[in-house]
Order: sequence, then structure tokens, then C-alpha cells
Amino acid sequence: MSEPKFVLGLDYGTNSVRALIVGVSNGDEIATYVYDYKRGRAGIVTDEKDANVARQDPADYVEGTDKCIKGALEKAKRVKGFSPGNIIGIGVDTTGSTPIPVDRDGQPLCFRTEFRDNINALAWLWKDHSGHAEAEEITDLAAKVHPEYLAKCGGVYSSEWFFSKILHCLHVDPAVFEAARSWVELADFIPGILTGKSKPESLKRSVCAAGHKAMYNRDWGGLPAKDFLNTLAPELGDLRDRLYDEAYTSDTTAGFLSEQKARDLGLETGVPVSVGAFDAHMGAVGAGIQPGTLVKIIGTSTCDMMVAPNREKLPDIPGLCGIVNGSILPGYLGLEAGQSAVGDIFNWFVENLTPAGSKTQDMHKLLTEKASSLKPGESGLIALDWNNGNRTVLADARLTGLILGQTLNTKPEEIYRALIEGTAYGARIIINRFEEYGIKVEEVIACGGIAEKNPLLLQIYADVFETPIKVSRSSQTCALGAAMFGAVAGGRERGGYKNAEEAIEHMSGAKPTVYHPDKDRSRLYARLFKLYRQLHDVFGTRQYSSNLHHVMKGLLQIKQETKRNA
Amino acid sequence: MSEPKFVLGLDYGTNSVRALIVGVSNGDEIATYVYDYKRGRAGIVTDEKDANVARQDPADYVEGTDKCIKGALEKAKRVKGFSPGNIIGIGVDTTGSTPIPVDRDGQPLCFRTEFRDNINALAWLWKDHSGHAEAEEITDLAAKVHPEYLAKCGGVYSSEWFFSKILHCLHVDPAVFEAARSWVELADFIPGILTGKSKPESLKRSVCAAGHKAMYNRDWGGLPAKDFLNTLAPELGDLRDRLYDEAYTSDTTAGFLSEQKARDLGLETGVPVSVGAFDAHMGAVGAGIQPGTLVKIIGTSTCDMMVAPNREKLPDIPGLCGIVNGSILPGYLGLEAGQSAVGDIFNWFVENLTPAGSKTQDMHKLLTEKASSLKPGESGLIALDWNNGNRTVLADARLTGLILGQTLNTKPEEIYRALIEGTAYGARIIINRFEEYGIKVEEVIACGGIAEKNPLLLQIYADVFETPIKVSRSSQTCALGAAMFGAVAGGRERGGYKNAEEAIEHMSGAKPTVYHPDKDRSRLYARLFKLYRQLHDVFGTRQYSSNLHHVMKGLLQIKQETKRNA
Repeated sequence: MSEPKFVLGLDYGTNSVRALIVGVSNGDEIATYVYDYKRGRAGIVTDEKDANVARQDPADYVEGTDKCIKGALEKAKRVKGFSPGNIIGIGVDTTGSTPIPVDRDGQPLCFRTEFRDNINALAWLWKDHSGHAEAEEITDLAAKVHPEYLAKCGGVYSSEWFFSKILHCLHVDPAVFEAARSWVELADFIPGILTGKSKPESLKRSVCAAGHKAMYNRDWGGLPAKDFLNTLAPELGDLRDRLYDEAYTSDTTAGFLSEQKARDLGLETGVPVSVGAFDAHMGAVGAGIQPGTLVKIIGTSTCDMMVAPNREKLPDIPGLCGIVNGSILPGYLGLEAGQSAVGDIFNWFVENLTPAGSKTQDMHKLLTEKASSLKPGESGLIALDWNNGNRTVLADARLTGLILGQTLNTKPEEIYRALIEGTAYGARIIINRFEEYGIKVEEVIACGGIAEKNPLLLQIYADVFETPIKVSRSSQTCALGAAMFGAVAGGRERGGYKNAEEAIEHMSGAKPTVYHPDKDRSRLYARLFKLYRQLHDVFGTRQYSSNLHHVMKGLLQIKQETKRNA
Repeated sequence: MSEPKFVLGLDYGTNSVRALIVGVSNGDEIATYVYDYKRGRAGIVTDEKDANVARQDPADYVEGTDKCIKGALEKAKRVKGFSPGNIIGIGVDTTGSTPIPVDRDGQPLCFRTEFRDNINALAWLWKDHSGHAEAEEITDLAAKVHPEYLAKCGGVYSSEWFFSKILHCLHVDPAVFEAARSWVELADFIPGILTGKSKPESLKRSVCAAGHKAMYNRDWGGLPAKDFLNTLAPELGDLRDRLYDEAYTSDTTAGFLSEQKARDLGLETGVPVSVGAFDAHMGAVGAGIQPGTLVKIIGTSTCDMMVAPNREKLPDIPGLCGIVNGSILPGYLGLEAGQSAVGDIFNWFVENLTPAGSKTQDMHKLLTEKASSLKPGESGLIALDWNNGNRTVLADARLTGLILGQTLNTKPEEIYRALIEGTAYGARIIINRFEEYGIKVEEVIACGGIAEKNPLLLQIYADVFETPIKVSRSSQTCALGAAMFGAVAGGRERGGYKNAEEAIEHMSGAKPTVYHPDKDRSRLYARLFKLYRQLHDVFGTRQYSSNLHHVMKGLLQIKQETKRNA
């Protein structure tokens, strides 16, 4: 019997990086180590002058990579049967779009003395919104001359994405823009430092990052046309030549662990490193995605991931954040949807609106307990889940929350439950949109913090979806997904797998508890959902003659004017 | 110089009765005494089996009358220049509709041994809703055969009112119904016990109670036609003969203090007692009502009172709770509107939804302070003030609250302010309705607990109304109004006044601070009110083709079904 093989998954989150060592044969997670970023506040560098700014120092990535791998290896060594030499592959997932301006060698510009204290030379973290004006500019131009660019990303190019950030950098800091040989997504930067091949032109760029954030699509020859970028700014047109023409799925090997890195870390030289991807996409793989399965990563917000066979041409799905070939599973279309706020709404409620004199310790627990004894519809409340706008299907950040039905007897736990139900209805709208376009949702696999902690929420979701919900066995599906692509990079010859499907079959799984919809509750929820649907359409769209689409907009307009006049 | 004269006002509230002794010449309030009711919980007898039940033991009224008058006299005696012999008149205001089943002598049936423990033999307090089915029955029948009955009371006959209660008594307790010689409003019962003329046929019934709660109107010959009552129940038709044909304004003398009572209380025999009226109506007089002045009594709910000259025929005003000749000022039409919840909404919010870990001491104060620094529209929030339904203009108890515009950054004080603003917009709807029917609101006089305590609310109201707001000088306007009618009962010959206008001129007044609308804020509020108006119409009416009138109803329907199936 051959020695057991292991793979390493690296998961670069918003505040920390996690290394996870996993057994290839069965997905056993034998060791994990988290390294918290040191720069800024919890790893995020902000700017007093612009609340939209959120940057990250790549030094944290570099240090964090070594520290968390070593930390995990230390722990793994205590596990019987493990040896560092038996690590046969490394996979990487990161936040995104998190582009870094780099020099000819692929070194972040902020590592240079001249840019040391310049926040524009740092990594532009996914949640940096400083390029919101540029995002509008890009959206407007694309709507006019290349509507197909927008059709794959929900109709709006976001301020969070690659070109919005780069164009904003050109506008506010031309020196950094000029000094940048290229811009590299964090998901591509990490394989570069592991393999020692960081030069921009030698990187194998992630199709997940390229397709979801940089309007990359083979149908129109890769990145957006040079003409298009030239119209936005000639410098951006020039930059296109220093970006990339080809992007790769994560079953592609990006390269092999460099001698230097292997020595530093105590691993074998030449361990294959897979092409990176975004956390949610790898998380979907870690949770065991397949056609018919919706993977919901439920945390402060949600990512709702599906795959569809690429055989027949899928029409563009209006309001869907992204449709990218191979972004989740190679060979399948990767579909990304999501809700802008879920856990964040519950946190907002608990932090601001709790019963007078209540203890703060665990209001979530207390309210969940009390809300559990309520029946659907019993409170007479209904809520729209738009406290942070709507990402899918309306794709409109300028929407706000609504709660309706309160009386003088309304209790906090009733509102808490109504907020959970509101997010369930919002999620159902996404499921319906998938199904309207022929992508049937047969089961749901939930993962993420809330999925682990809140059975009430999962039961409500099952009842509202009328679909069983499983919970991913792993509580670190992103890192697990990355590790699984490490096993694919290792390949059968090293004791890994031929492809992602094979890795899923052996390495992922669900917990034993399944949340089955209850017929009576589902019937009630179907009636409530109908009312939600009407509120959704009347406030969120212009489809009715006497819609209230202007109400939330009008309030935001007055709010803005008030602030401006202050 | 003659000795100063005084009058006594008696104000029977929901939990207590207040006696107020006032100087006739200038309205100086020299002594007051409050007696808390002893029976039930804070004076209210409830029924475990029916949450709609709210009764009161008339023994509390009888004892309370003596105790509070004696208490006030004790205090007044310490005031220089006062002597009990100089009290020249007594006025009475009470809650209503609060009918009491009485025997031939006018004694409450509950004073008899056989009915001692029977809650149906007690007074049926204004907020008793046990007759809701009967109210619907009455409304339906009136809509068919006598729509004019409903036109004066907002289109719906309420479960809180006289005949709903009596008919319900007939349905649930025929023995009490049969034993009742008549039913007497509390406002008529009190003058009866003071004058010793309690027999139902010798009482001078209040036109305020008769007109607002018993569909009394001279235009159709007093109470509703016998035929009409017969159709509801033959027993109710019979009862009509034992009720009354004539009702009186409060400038009429009901009778004179009996020897017995005078001796018990230490007052002069023969002091005139005026015909009673409801608290809000007398409060309006105490606050100094006149044509063009809206008196808003702002507490847990509001009463919005106006008077209009009776010269030209006023058309029926849709959605107005009541239009009764002489119910406020004799010789003028009394118009009653109101909001079902104002202070109750703020209390609900503070009791249920406050920042985690906050001290409970004075959240109203804290939130008001924080909300004061906000500008109109700054929060992006808007609220409908229907947490307890809508009394005027929609006259629909089955409406519920709504709050809209919340984000993840919304703060409790922003919601608190939005709730205040919601009540301001609701109040503005009432003002607009008055004005649409030619009753111009030139100034507002506020009184009641909230008017005294919350300058922020008054300023917001002034800005939203675009009308200056004064605050009544007295903080017990109801008792003061009653006392003023005592001065009218006394008449000029005893040192009192010829009529209510004269009493108002001398005895009422406003505090020095006036809340003037601010042009800039009013402009912003006009825009916000437009949005409120649209929400109001879309959710509260069927006037738009794609209205959402069914949303709140649908939720209440599901809520009811859920409870029924529990």
C-alpha cells in the first residue's frame, strides 16, 4: 500500500490567509493555520479622505504565505502518516477583484522605495469602491458600443472590478499608473511567488478573475477590445498589450514550487501549483458543486453559485452577476449570483435594534431561539432584504430596506425572523431566475458561517425554496476547494485526480443533517412570497404603470442633497 | 372688589379621575388632585377569554369623585383667597363611548347582588372592542339603508361605540341586557350622581357622546330610527324608547349639586353642574379652540379637533371620525379626527428596538437628542404611521406600519426621527382633508403629554404642516375645559361667563414659545411628504390600478389563519 498523499489549499481572505492540509483520498482536513494580516486595520488600509478606499499591503500576502504554510505543516507533522514530502499539489484561492500594480519582475510597486507610502501602489482590495465614477463610465460606454460585455456580468460593470480600479488609478495617480508594467490579480500573484515565475508575461492568469471582473471572454477574443479601452483612456488601451490574451481554468498547472520556496517552507521542489481562482468559486467546488446543485455561501452577504453544461449555448441571464466558462468547474459555465447583505442585515439589527435593557452577549442566539417558535406568517411582517442594495436580479446598489406590517405588539424576534425570511425570499428570486433560464435547482448545499450556525435560517430557506438543503461537511470550503485543485494539479501520476469532478467525488461531502421542506410551511411561504414578489417588483422595477421605483431613489436623492448642503 | 370666584373641573380618564380648581377670572389652576382607580389592573377589568374586553367598575367613579374633589379642596384651602363657597360651577369630561347598563334609578347593574361578579354589568370602557362583529353588522346595515348615519362618523361604525357594545351585550349576556332599564354614558352618569338626579329619564344627555358615538343627529330626529335598530335586534328597537330623544351641549346646566353631595364634599348646595362631554372635546376648549385653530391633543394617540361655523351647510367629509353640532363649542360644528397611534409608536420602538447594551433610563430623551441633530431627509428613511391602523382619513383599522430606506448604516435615532416624521405626515394628511373641505387651518395648538415634553416633535410638525404651532399653557386642558364649562354653568350672575367663547377668552392661553416653520426644512419636507402621500395611497387605498392595498390585508389574513390553526 502506497503512502497517503496530501494537498495544500491556500485561501486568501479579507483579513487573513489560511493554509489547509487535506488528505487526497477522502478529503480529511488534517491541519489548518490562519495568519492574520498585520498592516492597516485588520489587514485593510483605508483613507480618511475617501471612505471608498480599501487597500492591502502585498507584504502581508508574502509573509502570510510562508507563515501559514509553515504553521500548518508544524501541526500536520503531529498527524500519523503525514510527511511534507507527500504533498503532491498546491491550490490557491483569493478575494477579487484585488489587482496589484507590478513592475517588470512582477514585484508590487509598493515594494519600491519611491512608492513605499503610496496607497495607490498597494493591492486594491475587492471592496475598494473608489472607482465608482469610472465604473459608471465603463458601463455607459459598454452599453453603447459593446453591450455583450455587460450581458455576462449582470448589466452593470462594478466599481469593485479590475478596470474601474485601474482607470481610477490613472485619474488620481498617473505616476503609479505609468510605473506599472502590468496589473496582476491576487489570484495570479500568489502562484507567481510560489513558482518563482512572477513576471507578468509568464503568469497563467485565472479565467475566473478575468471572466468575472475584466470582461474577458473568448467569444470576443479575450479582454475588451483595444479600441474600447482607448476610448476610456489611451493609456488604458496601451496597458491592454501588457495584460494577457489567454486565461486558464484551475485544472491547469500554473507552474511548480521553486527551489527557493521549497527550501524556505520545507517542501519538495517541483510540487505543482494550480492556476488560482476566487474564493467563492473554489468554495463551490469544496462544497461539491455539480449541475443541478446550487451552492450558497452564506455569510455577511451570499454568493450563489451554479454550473451549467457548456454543450448548448446558454442565453444571457438578465441580472446575473457573472457567467464565465470554466470559472468554477472546468468544462462548465460558472454562474455567480448573490445577495449584497444577509448576515450583515441580522448584525445591523442586533447592533442597533434590540429590546431595551437586553444583555448584549448573544442576541443572535436569543432572537433565533425566540423566532424559532413562530410560524410562517404569524407576525404579519414582511421585509425586503435590500439594506445593502440588490446584487442579483435587480443589480441595483441604490435600493434600500423595507419592513412592513408592524403593529404596537410587534416583537424584536418577529422582526428578526422577518429579516431572515426576507433574505430567503430574495434568495428564492435568484433561484427562480436560474430556473426561468432552464437551470434547474434540484438541491442546495449551504456553507459559510451562518450555514454552520443557524438551523432556523436553513429550515426557513428549505421551506421557502421548496428544495432540500444540505450543509457542506467542511467549514472551510474555500481552502478545501483550493486543495482539491491542488490534487488535480498533482494528477493521477502523483496520486491525485484526473479532474475536478473526480476530486469532488472523493474529497467533498455534506453533513448528515438535511433540511427538508415542510409542505404546510411551504404553502404558507408561497403565499407570503407572492406578496414579497409584488413589493420587489413595485419598488425595484418600472414594470408596473404605477410603480414605486422612484421612492427609494427619491429618498437617496434627498439624502445626498442634504449631505452636500451640510 | 368682590371675592375671586372658582370653578371645578372633573376629568375621568382611563386609569384615574382628576379634580381641578381654577380661578374664573384668569384660568389660574390653583389645586389639582388625582385619584387612581382601584379595581382591575389600573382601573381596567379584563377578560382572559377575550382580549377585546375592557371594563371599569362604576364604584371607582363614585368613590373617585368624592376623593378627588375633597383632595383638591384640601389643597386649594391653603391658597390665599380661596374658599369652597366661592366655587360657582362644576364641569365634567370623561372617556367615551363608555356606556353603563343601569336600573330604573340610574344605578349601575353591577351594584346589585345578582350582577356583582358579572363583567357585562360593569361600565364598558371606550377601548373595549368585544363588539367588533356587531360593529360590522351595524356598519353594513347602515351602509345599505341609512348611509347618512355613517357619513358623519367617517364611514364606519366602530366597535368602540355605544350600540356595538349594547348589541354585543344582548348577544352574550341577555340577562344583563334585559335587566338594564337604560344605558348611560359615563359623561351623563357623573352629572347624575352630582345632582342626585340619576334616573335615566331625568338625565340631560351629552350631545357630544350622542352625536359622536350613538349616531344622534337632529337632521334625522335624534337617535337612529327604531326600524333600523329593530332590524339589528327587536330588543334594541325596544331599548330606543328607554334612551333619549334630546341631547344637549355643555353650556346647558344639567342640574344643581344635591344637598347630600354638597354636605359630603363640603361645597354649597345648588352649585350648577354642566352637561358632560368627552375629554378630547373639553380639552379642545381648554386649549382655546376657535375657527381656524386645529387643537391637537398628542399622547399615545392623537385627537385632532376643529370647529366650523354652522352657518353654511358643511358637506360630509370622507374619512373624518365625527362631525357633530355643538360637540365642542355650542353653536359650532365639532369636527373630530385623529391618529390611532403616535406616542404609542415611539414607546413601541423604545421598548423593543434600542441599541444593544443601552441603558433603559430615558431612551426617549437620548434618541430625541440624537435625532435633533439630523436634517430632514438625511437618513433616507420614511415611515407610515399605521402601527395601530388609521383612524382618519382612511378609517381602516386593518392597516399596519411600514418603514423604508434602511441601510446597514441606519442608526436607531434615524428610525426614531423617521417615526416622528411619519406621524407628522399622517397629521398633515388630516389637515389637508380639512382644507379640501374649506376648513382652513391657520394655526395649531398642541397639548397633551408629548406636546409638553418634545420640542423636536413640535418643530418637525410645524415644518411639515407649514403652520405655526403653539402649546397650550395648561398641562391639564381636559380638566380645564370642564372647569370652563363650569364657569358657563355658573353664568354671569354668579361671576362666571355668558358662553364658552367668553370663558376661552379669559381662562385659556398658550405658552410663550411658538414653533414657526422653517422655510428650508419645509421645502425638504414637502418633497418627502409627496413620497409619503404615494405610499399612503398605494398601500392604503385602491385608487391606483396597480395598488398594493392587498399587501397589509393579505399579511393580516395569513396571520389570522396561522393563529386559528395553532
